[in-house]
Amino acid sequence: MDQKNFSKPLSLAKVQVTDAFWKKEMELVRTEVIPYQWNALNDNVPGAAPSFCMRNYRRAGEVEKERKAKGDKFVQIKYPLDTFETLPKDGKMDGRFYGFLFQDTDFTKWVEAVAYSLTQHPDPELEKTADEAIEAVCAAQREDGYLDTYYLINDQDMIFTNLKDNHELYCFGHLTEGAVAYYQATGKDHLLKAAERFADFIASKLGHGEGKKAGYPGHEIAEMALMRLYDLTGEQKYLDLAKYFIDERGTKPYYYDIERGLTCPEGAERYSYNQANRPVRQQDEVQGHSVRAVYLYSGMADVARATQDESLLKACETLWNNMVHQKMYVTGGIGATHIGEAFSFNYDLPNDTAYAETCASIGLVFFARRMLEIQAKAEYADVMELALYNGVLSGMALDGKSFFYVNPLEVLPEACHKDERKFHVKPIRQKWFGCACCPPNLARTVSSVASYAYTENDTTLFVHLYMGGTVEGEKVKASITSEFPWDGHVSVTCESDTKEPYTFAFRIPGWCASYEKEIPKGAEVEEKDGYLYVTKVWAKGETIRLNFPMEIQFLASNPLVREDAGRVAVKRGPVVYCMEEADNGKNLHLTKLCVNGEKTAEAADELGEHFVRVTAEGRRMKLGDAEKQPLYHLYQKEEEEKTKLKLIPYYMWNNRGEGEMQVWIRACE
Amino acid sequence: MDQKNFSKPLSLAKVQVTDAFWKKEMELVRTEVIPYQWNALNDNVPGAAPSFCMRNYRRAGEVEKERKAKGDKFVQIKYPLDTFETLPKDGKMDGRFYGFLFQDTDFTKWVEAVAYSLTQHPDPELEKTADEAIEAVCAAQREDGYLDTYYLINDQDMIFTNLKDNHELYCFGHLTEGAVAYYQATGKDHLLKAAERFADFIASKLGHGEGKKAGYPGHEIAEMALMRLYDLTGEQKYLDLAKYFIDERGTKPYYYDIERGLTCPEGAERYSYNQANRPVRQQDEVQGHSVRAVYLYSGMADVARATQDESLLKACETLWNNMVHQKMYVTGGIGATHIGEAFSFNYDLPNDTAYAETCASIGLVFFARRMLEIQAKAEYADVMELALYNGVLSGMALDGKSFFYVNPLEVLPEACHKDERKFHVKPIRQKWFGCACCPPNLARTVSSVASYAYTENDTTLFVHLYMGGTVEGEKVKASITSEFPWDGHVSVTCESDTKEPYTFAFRIPGWCASYEKEIPKGAEVEEKDGYLYVTKVWAKGETIRLNFPMEIQFLASNPLVREDAGRVAVKRGPVVYCMEEADNGKNLHLTKLCVNGEKTAEAADELGEHFVRVTAEGRRMKLGDAEKQPLYHLYQKEEEEKTKLKLIPYYMWNNRGEGEMQVWIRACE
Repeated sequence: MDQKNFSKPLSLAKVQVTDAFWKKEMELVRTEVIPYQWNALNDNVPGAAPSFCMRNYRRAGEVEKERKAKGDKFVQIKYPLDTFETLPKDGKMDGRFYGFLFQDTDFTKWVEAVAYSLTQHPDPELEKTADEAIEAVCAAQREDGYLDTYYLINDQDMIFTNLKDNHELYCFGHLTEGAVAYYQATGKDHLLKAAERFADFIASKLGHGEGKKAGYPGHEIAEMALMRLYDLTGEQKYLDLAKYFIDERGTKPYYYDIERGLTCPEGAERYSYNQANRPVRQQDEVQGHSVRAVYLYSGMADVARATQDESLLKACETLWNNMVHQKMYVTGGIGATHIGEAFSFNYDLPNDTAYAETCASIGLVFFARRMLEIQAKAEYADVMELALYNGVLSGMALDGKSFFYVNPLEVLPEACHKDERKFHVKPIRQKWFGCACCPPNLARTVSSVASYAYTENDTTLFVHLYMGGTVEGEKVKASITSEFPWDGHVSVTCESDTKEPYTFAFRIPGWCASYEKEIPKGAEVEEKDGYLYVTKVWAKGETIRLNFPMEIQFLASNPLVREDAGRVAVKRGPVVYCMEEADNGKNLHLTKLCVNGEKTAEAADELGEHFVRVTAEGRRMKLGDAEKQPLYHLYQKEEEEKTKLKLIPYYMWNNRGEGEMQVWIRACE
Repeated sequence: MDQKNFSKPLSLAKVQVTDAFWKKEMELVRTEVIPYQWNALNDNVPGAAPSFCMRNYRRAGEVEKERKAKGDKFVQIKYPLDTFETLPKDGKMDGRFYGFLFQDTDFTKWVEAVAYSLTQHPDPELEKTADEAIEAVCAAQREDGYLDTYYLINDQDMIFTNLKDNHELYCFGHLTEGAVAYYQATGKDHLLKAAERFADFIASKLGHGEGKKAGYPGHEIAEMALMRLYDLTGEQKYLDLAKYFIDERGTKPYYYDIERGLTCPEGAERYSYNQANRPVRQQDEVQGHSVRAVYLYSGMADVARATQDESLLKACETLWNNMVHQKMYVTGGIGATHIGEAFSFNYDLPNDTAYAETCASIGLVFFARRMLEIQAKAEYADVMELALYNGVLSGMALDGKSFFYVNPLEVLPEACHKDERKFHVKPIRQKWFGCACCPPNLARTVSSVASYAYTENDTTLFVHLYMGGTVEGEKVKASITSEFPWDGHVSVTCESDTKEPYTFAFRIPGWCASYEKEIPKGAEVEEKDGYLYVTKVWAKGETIRLNFPMEIQFLASNPLVREDAGRVAVKRGPVVYCMEEADNGKNLHLTKLCVNGEKTAEAADELGEHFVRVTAEGRRMKLGDAEKQPLYHLYQKEEEEKTKLKLIPYYMWNNRGEGEMQVWIRACE
């Protein structure tokens, strides 16, 4: 790999997003999600199961206070480790930990979203709330740096005894992500120092060498978090720890066997759920829990870049290709089975039983951005954009008040209610979850979306995603106008002079067959890997105009995808469309889309959302009195009537109550 | 209902089946299944998990012997009741019960199949083996009549304390079915008396009144078994007990709540798995475990007939209609979900995740025959025939050596191996099962198939199914030639004179649009409810000739069946067809069947089976180098090539190793 191609994301403080689309999403997060989340992690949401998150931190703080006071005489009162997920019996709490064992991350994800939000919308009161919470969190940290309240409260002797299933390193990862973000947003380093000390503690306990355990995370994230810490601090030790986690993973003898005292192996593919069945450089198929997988791959890409490790990059590319070309839904969703929230086998992409967790699409965005940091290739940005506008945003209602974990591509509400095989598919977004991973993950992703839009290096500012706003790179300032994802016209105005030649690199979206450009005179222009490189000595006010025409497209699947045989999906620009019952009536399976028929795209405003509706010619089989007819009859040509299919963006589905939804529609001529 | 319409099945001793099709199946059962089964229930199959069935009977016999010897001083050594399914630890057995808790039925189903087989093929050695086994079984019976080895061995104090989950009444039911059959075949009543004494014991403990529990079976079958005992003996008490079970079922307060000491109800639909969520006369949707359901409905039909209970018959009809018109696969399979081995919601009939248990189709045959006994309507016989030739027979390999529990309508072996959602679907028939319900159920059904073919009453001999052989009714003898299911020509010759006018009633299969008949002169002919009634004073040698043309038919599903939209199934006569990979290559989902194309039916001999192969014009999408292509691309008209689809009878699938299979094929013009 060539370091000249590397680029890094801009600090969010240097980017302002002002366009209608993303600004609205970010405002939802700021005004709805963040306040709700704060109440949730303080157990102040009436009717919702308490999180116990801040309570656990305070309780751990008491334990630590006592430890400090008693010194050598400290003897911990212990509680059984199996009490997570337990609500207090009869409402009576004792000193134990409550909630899920990764409940600490309710706070650390929240503070990360807060940090991003503060860069776009300063809010001293919110910052004060966060500062106070950070004090409580830091007060819980042990003197030696350990900071996971589940073990701090219940049994400190059991720290790092179940890396496979428990989530200490996962909690560490989110703590670090939040701490780095908060430092970058506010300059305050209290939480950052806590994260560093926790990292140092981990490095002292895990790894090779005397007195250490050769363990690694059961749920990955620490790898990329450590790399963020490394990128910020330049401290080699954090890179070393991340690299160790990645290199050690899946080697034999399996650490998870050792940890669990197993002498009898569980079968060749054990630990594929955790991507720990073989060393990462030998992995050639994305497997197991999809969120864990993409979090791991993100960390791998980070380490590959930082260490210029070709074999690790190769593994990233192999896994990327397998995922994107054999295991990804057309919406950018990943994870085709709810069993293990996992990838299924190649080309197995059922629409109605999909898992396609919101967090998995978010992790795919993480992975894609990191691949872009190594080398700008439009394919990475295409997938990143696809996931953001579809598989990620579908996780949140238009009012920011309810959420999907699971993002199916076809829904029959009756099945969700009556068929246990589809109980994981919710026919309506949920208010909040006891295991609240997706909503706060959405919050931190949406509020930091600009960090996926731009990366830079000494010579080039890369524009991967188009969104209106301003960007202040190290060598150039620019303002961008865009009405993505509804219109493909973009203009980029240079807002500063450059003394040297400097390059803007614009991604040419894979979804447009051709595009138009208007480039200032004297510029050197090159197309490479799906990017348009425009180089010149820039004068303030010079403008580049681009137009990426957004046509309505009918997509077909690779013929090896059985579930989509004979079907088409509708896409326009980066936005995938779907049919809903609210627009098209019940029994969507009776409709067909005429692939040679007329189709129109029209601006629409509904449910407080400005969007483009697609209408397409279709046919609908007449149902007649089907309920009175027998189950089977001699085939005869179906009686059909012409219809207009009304399609809305997939991310907008299910904002009008329960109803059927379908992305892949049977095709007809 | 009109008693004049009633008819009853003929004793198997009065019917000989000689045609090529069924004779072969019966011979398989006689020469392969019955001997294998005997070895299995005696733990003599190398490599297979032991059944422990006969061992348990012998062990229970020892306990009973001790009880008799010690009288009042008898104190049972008890074993925990949760040890079923347990193999002996380290191979060391102690005195406890081993195997599944319904393992007694391994013997009782076997002896039933033996009984039927003896009627068609006397075999003194087999009869002697059975007689000896019966002695061992009867020796285990308690003096008061109780006979279930699980409780006899492990803890007699716990008898009838868990009717919901444990299977005492199920074991009783199979014991009774076997006992009646063995008595009817051999005239020997040792086992029959044991069944009667067990029935008497049950009647003394369950029911209304002082000292009784108001319980009923968790897994139904006792109802129809008691009715068989009643029909044989004429003893009112057996009818009363069957009627009690049916009337009490699902009434409130729920017995299963009482039995389990539950004060907090589990939700409105609790016990729908057991068809015990509401009184049977209020049930209007077939629900829960499909085998249990059809066993119950069979008992209900028996009791409705015997008591001329119109409301009970109405319930049977309602449930029949719901099942047949909203929840039955085109193969006569029932039970669309493996979760609870149960019915799914109306019109939910997924092909690839189907359960469609062999035993459920067998139970459907039971139910249909019982409805026919009340009134001969072709719909019942059509479904009975459909299930027999397809959903039942598909459960057994052509060599009688391996078996399916689950009978899917579409199989991709890779999914069966890799996708946990389809782990219940086996891509290849299994040798035998620890929980061996389907193979012995197949054995007893196939070897008694003639009892589904004919019923009679004072005026009429009904021919519901066509199979070659002879039948000796109470008033008439006849011989039948038939090459069903491959050819629709049937001739029936009267082999005796009748003094009075007598009627032959022939079912006119629903699958033929018209038919030909050649009737002796002077006969009165009437068509009613799909039966052709031919009445005259018969002279020996008079022959009726019928021809039910077997055309290749393309069937479509009711449009409410989402999974079959745009697809057709192929049927010829009563036989449903499928495509297999062995004939049509991989990726069956790429093929389409041309509904207006040519189609041919040709006699074939393969795998030792004479059958009719269907060939139909089709198209196959070209796959090209799909594995190198992206997952999604702009739609373009699929490149297709013409092909001939080769179809084989569904029951013959999977006799050439693992491979794809598909019943519902995408249709094209």
